[in-house]
Order: sequence, then C-alpha cells, then structure tokens
Amino acid sequence: MSSATLDLSLALLKQPSVTPLDYDCQQMIAARLSNVGFQIEHMPFDDVKNLWARRGTTAPLFCFAGHTDVVPTGDQNAWDSAPFAPEIRDGKLYGRGSADMKTAIAAMVIATERFVEKHPDHKGSIAYLITSDEEGPSINGTVKVIETLEARNEKIDWCLVGEPSSTAKLGDIIKNGRRGSLNGVLKVQGKQGHVAYPHLAQNPIHLATHALDQLCKTTWDNGNDYFPATSFQISNIQAGTGATNVIPDILTVTFNFRFSTEVTADELKQRVQAILDHENLNYSIDWTLSGLPFLTPVGDLVNAAKNSIKKVTGDDTTLSTSGGTSDGRFIAPTGAQVIELGVLNATIHQINEHVNVADLEPLAEIYEQMLVELLT
Amino acid sequence: MSSATLDLSLALLKQPSVTPLDYDCQQMIAARLSNVGFQIEHMPFDDVKNLWARRGTTAPLFCFAGHTDVVPTGDQNAWDSAPFAPEIRDGKLYGRGSADMKTAIAAMVIATERFVEKHPDHKGSIAYLITSDEEGPSINGTVKVIETLEARNEKIDWCLVGEPSSTAKLGDIIKNGRRGSLNGVLKVQGKQGHVAYPHLAQNPIHLATHALDQLCKTTWDNGNDYFPATSFQISNIQAGTGATNVIPDILTVTFNFRFSTEVTADELKQRVQAILDHENLNYSIDWTLSGLPFLTPVGDLVNAAKNSIKKVTGDDTTLSTSGGTSDGRFIAPTGAQVIELGVLNATIHQINEHVNVADLEPLAEIYEQMLVELLT
Repeated sequence: MSSATLDLSLALLKQPSVTPLDYDCQQMIAARLSNVGFQIEHMPFDDVKNLWARRGTTAPLFCFAGHTDVVPTGDQNAWDSAPFAPEIRDGKLYGRGSADMKTAIAAMVIATERFVEKHPDHKGSIAYLITSDEEGPSINGTVKVIETLEARNEKIDWCLVGEPSSTAKLGDIIKNGRRGSLNGVLKVQGKQGHVAYPHLAQNPIHLATHALDQLCKTTWDNGNDYFPATSFQISNIQAGTGATNVIPDILTVTFNFRFSTEVTADELKQRVQAILDHENLNYSIDWTLSGLPFLTPVGDLVNAAKNSIKKVTGDDTTLSTSGGTSDGRFIAPTGAQVIELGVLNATIHQINEHVNVADLEPLAEIYEQMLVELLT
Repeated sequence: MSSATLDLSLALLKQPSVTPLDYDCQQMIAARLSNVGFQIEHMPFDDVKNLWARRGTTAPLFCFAGHTDVVPTGDQNAWDSAPFAPEIRDGKLYGRGSADMKTAIAAMVIATERFVEKHPDHKGSIAYLITSDEEGPSINGTVKVIETLEARNEKIDWCLVGEPSSTAKLGDIIKNGRRGSLNGVLKVQGKQGHVAYPHLAQNPIHLATHALDQLCKTTWDNGNDYFPATSFQISNIQAGTGATNVIPDILTVTFNFRFSTEVTADELKQRVQAILDHENLNYSIDWTLSGLPFLTPVGDLVNAAKNSIKKVTGDDTTLSTSGGTSDGRFIAPTGAQVIELGVLNATIHQINEHVNVADLEPLAEIYEQMLVELLT
C-alpha cells in the first residue's frame, strides 16, 4: 500500500498545523520543489506563512494552489485515532487534514516531480501558491500573495486549487466557480418596556417578523447554467433580556447570502433594505462582502481536467459551483482560469476525517496528466 | 411634616428586606397589631416569612394584604441617597419600597389603630396577610397562607391589597381585577448545517417566521367592560451558534399572554398550537400559567373604596384591571372581593423610588374610612 503520495501525505499529516500554524509543511514542500528546479519565495505576513514557488519564467503559468493549515480537531477523545497521528484502517487514511487538503498537496508535489523528470523542458511555467490561512480569517494568506504578484505583474493563467471537490467518487465533480458570500448583521430598534404595558413599548421582534418572513420567502434569482439559485439564510437571531416580563429594545439578526452571477451584492443590499423600509422599521445593517462570485467557463483548464480524469478513472466529470468559499475567490479576479479538484469531501471538518488511500495515486496521476495536457 | 404613618414607614424602609428577606418588618407590624387586640400567627414557609393576624372571630372578614419584601436596589451608587436610608427631599420620601409598598403597610397599621380605638366593638373581623415573597417566585408566600386558611375554612370576604395603584394623584385608580398571565417557551426543531448547503439543513428560523408573524398579528379577543384586549408579547428569541456560516438546529421563543376573562388559558394554548400546526412545525411548548384573571365587580368593597377616596380627597376614582400581576390572583379564587389601592406607582422598581410624603396621611385616612364603611 506504500506510495510516494501516501508517504508525503503522512509526513504532512503529522504536523499539527491548525490555522494559522504551518509547522514544517511549507519547508518540506519547498525542499522537494527546490530539488526539481523551482525558485522558492517565502512570503510570511504577520503570523501566517505563505509559499510561492515557480519553475520557469515564461507564460503560460500553471499554478497549484492550496493550504497547509487545517481546522481544529474538536474533541480529540472523540477520534478513533489521534488526529495528528495519521493511521490507515480498512483502506482509509485517518487524520485532520487528510481530506482538506494535505493529501492533495502531496499529490501535486509527486505529480510535479514526475512530470519534470519526464519533461524537463516543458513549455511555460509551473508555480505553487500555498498558505497557512485558508481556514481562518484569510487576511494574510492567498489574498496577500496575489497582491504581491499583481504588484510585480506576475500573472497566473491556469490555477488548480486542491480543495476536496469529489463527492461520491474521485474526480466526479470539478468546481469551476464559487458563489459569492455576503453577510449582514441587522439590528431592529424597538423600545424596552414591561410585557404588561405593551402600549408603552415597541417590541422589535413583533415589528420585524413580517419583514423576516418576507426575506425568508423571497426568490432572489433562479441561478443559471453554472450557478444554483442565490440562497438567503439567517444564522443567528437574538432579542431579550432573559426575563419573561420585559419587552426587549433591540433585535439582532445575522444572515448570509450565497449568490450567483445573476445578481450583484449591491442589488441584494438594495432589495433587503426595500423589504425592511416597506415595514417602516428603525434599523441598521452592517454588511460584509466576504467573496465575489467567480466562474471559469469551459476552456483550456476545464477541458484539461476533464480529459485527465477520464484518462485516469475512465469516468466523466460534472461541473459545479456549489459549496462554501475557497481561496479561488482571490485568484479568479486576476483573470486566471481557476478550478478546484481534489479528493472526496464527505468528512471534511469532521471527527475522524479520512480519505481513501486508493484515491491518492490516481489523484497524482490526474494532476500529472493535466500538466501534460497544458504544458507539453 | 412628622406623622404616625411617616414614622412607621421610615422604620420599615430602613429594613433592607430584598426578597425573600423580611428583617424585622413583620415583627414590627405584629407588635403594633397585637397591642390593639390582634391574634398573631407567623407562617414561615422555607425561607419566606408570612404573617397572619386577625382581630375578631366573626364574619364578615376584612383583610389588608401586602408584602414587606422589595425588589433589588440595582446600582446603589446610582441612587441620590442610599436605598435603605430613607430620606425626605422636596416633600418626597426616597427609599427602596417607599412606593411598593411599605408606606401602604404603614398606612394600614395606623388606620387600623385609629379605627380600633374609635370602634373597639366593630362588627366582623379585621385581618392582615403579609408576605416576604411577592416580588420573587411567589411560591412560599400568599399562596401558601391562603392554602392554610382554606384548609381550616377561614374565609376572607373583602381584601384590600396595598399595591401602588394610583397613577397621577392619590386614589385616582383602583385595580378591581388583574389580567391572567400565561407564559410559553416555544422550541422549533430544525436541522443544523452549513449555510452553503441549505438543502441539507432545515433552518428553524425560516420555518418559524410565518407562524411568529401570525402570532404577533392575531387579535385574541377585544376585552370587555373591565378588561383591555388580551395581549401577546414575545420577550425573548434566540437561535444560532454565533458562527455566521452555520444554520442553527433549534429556535427558542419565550412569550407571554396577559389575558382577559373573555378567553381561557386553554383556549389560548389551543389557538397557538393551531397556528404552529398549520405550518407543520416540529415544535414543543412548555407552558406556565402564572395567574388566572380575576375580577371584583362593583359591590360593597369597590363602593367603600370609592366613597372613602371621595370623602378624603374629594375626587372620583377609576376602576382598572391593567398592569402586572399581584398577590390578589391568589386571594380572589377563594371567592373574596379583592381590590388594590395604594400610592402612586410612577417610580416602582426604579432607582430613586419615592412617594409623596403628603399622600401618606390621606392614604391612612382612606383605609380607616373603608373600615368605617364596611365594619360599622
């Protein structure tokens, strides 16, 4: 069961690199890439480590992107084996980061080593953009590296993010875009009082229920060929002092839009405000745009991925833009084609996160075949 | 400015008798009543002190009811004078409990002493039902004394509760009933998930908004000659983990009905459940009936109060059933006529609680006149 991809995966999984920690992950990756002709640049920002490595100086530039940080383990005692002592049981490799996304990084490195050995004079360039701040605030990670590259006019043409995109079978899904994400914190102002004297108070919950109902019921768009319909979800709602006889003075509602390219963040803001204004509410909203939607239509990169998957697994693949945000949102705005392709995502962020060992070498083969398709 | 009612008020106000504490209040009252022929029974239950005192053995029985406990002071530094160091400034007596309701207890005692001196052989009986648990859970106070009296078939005919009923001027309002109070804690069950995958979750907030809107909009009744319309108020609403990307699994809503005699608690429960059932919600409600509505129609007791107020102040009085609950809810179900009549309620439970010194002697005169009307 031993393989080069598995060996490097195990080495990375032993590093307890919870965001923003990296431990020795990026040093390990840099050492391997340096050995096959990559120029290494460490780009730390604050407590975050970032790696930019490039082989070649010409266009087109193919970039592997990913992250060495992992989400917290949760209750370590709930794991069947220690989260940072990777273990194989029944053909599955267990460990925090096994699916999201250290095995994909290992597969990238192995694929690159093999490709460079066979094609030392490949056309264009290969690069790595690796951060230790993808699962956290994402302030000092990919976005800062991209700013640095943009400032010196270094352009990525094709970017493969190793996020776990597969659902039932390796390679069944490629993400070729992501929805935008818009957060709002709504505060509806009322007037505190005693429940026995409601005419002297203004209950912000009562004032807001109709508007909230309208927000929950609204069809924001119908999506399009690439995107599902924009969704609105309230994640938190709070009002009240805890006392049962006091009408509260303020209602706080936190909500999130995952939005398609059929609507803009500004349009969503205006439509929310129109619904609240219609109820004559005294309110404020604190908006945070945490990611614009991006889309890579079918083209060189998507086709290279589809062909490579077909060649290695024999299966067709499906394009999707569903799911959470990824660092692709920072790379796509530079004009790069961006897709996500990695292992199965069923157990990401969970207790006993794991991946199929049998998927690791095929993933390295897919990545290598993509380099063949695009750079030879 | 000195008066007997003021002197006893000051003595009571110096006792820091925050619920369930009484300090020496009931002992002071008992000593005064014992001196004028009352039989004294202390009826402590758990940490609550209760006093039952009676003069006479025959019917009809007129009972003064009240409480020696007070609500907490809040930030003592926010008071202009220490809350348990009563102080007169500009004709106002400041101190915690000055309005709610130690001055009324002082007025009862002074009125009783004067009445008994003039009418030692009054008809019927006079009693006192005093507790130290009116502002708290109200479990070991008036309700337990009433149970004791009922068990030995001791019946109150007329009960005057010394709660601060006056609004703009002493005696302008008598409470001749109170609305019922019904609390509910509603839990709507959903299914937790990631905001990016709403189809895999069930957002209990979204599921409930329409039903909540319906509950807020419903007209439960239109009240009647004595009661305002039944009111529904949500006091607390909570859902969410705090994270902005997690759909919560449960929504908790705390609400309260203040209800008239036009509807029953069971009818309200059924109507709430019908609205929730209509939305096919997976929910539970924990109901607490904290008081049935009660009403004392115009009769001997109300007329005695109105006549006495008119005689002392020259003003007409208005009947009301508005406002919060009082211990009258425990006494009325025995068949007693119950009213509340006391000083101005503008500052109850507030910082710098106070009462007009000039209202104290007239209140004692009103109480004494009521004894004259009813027991001579």
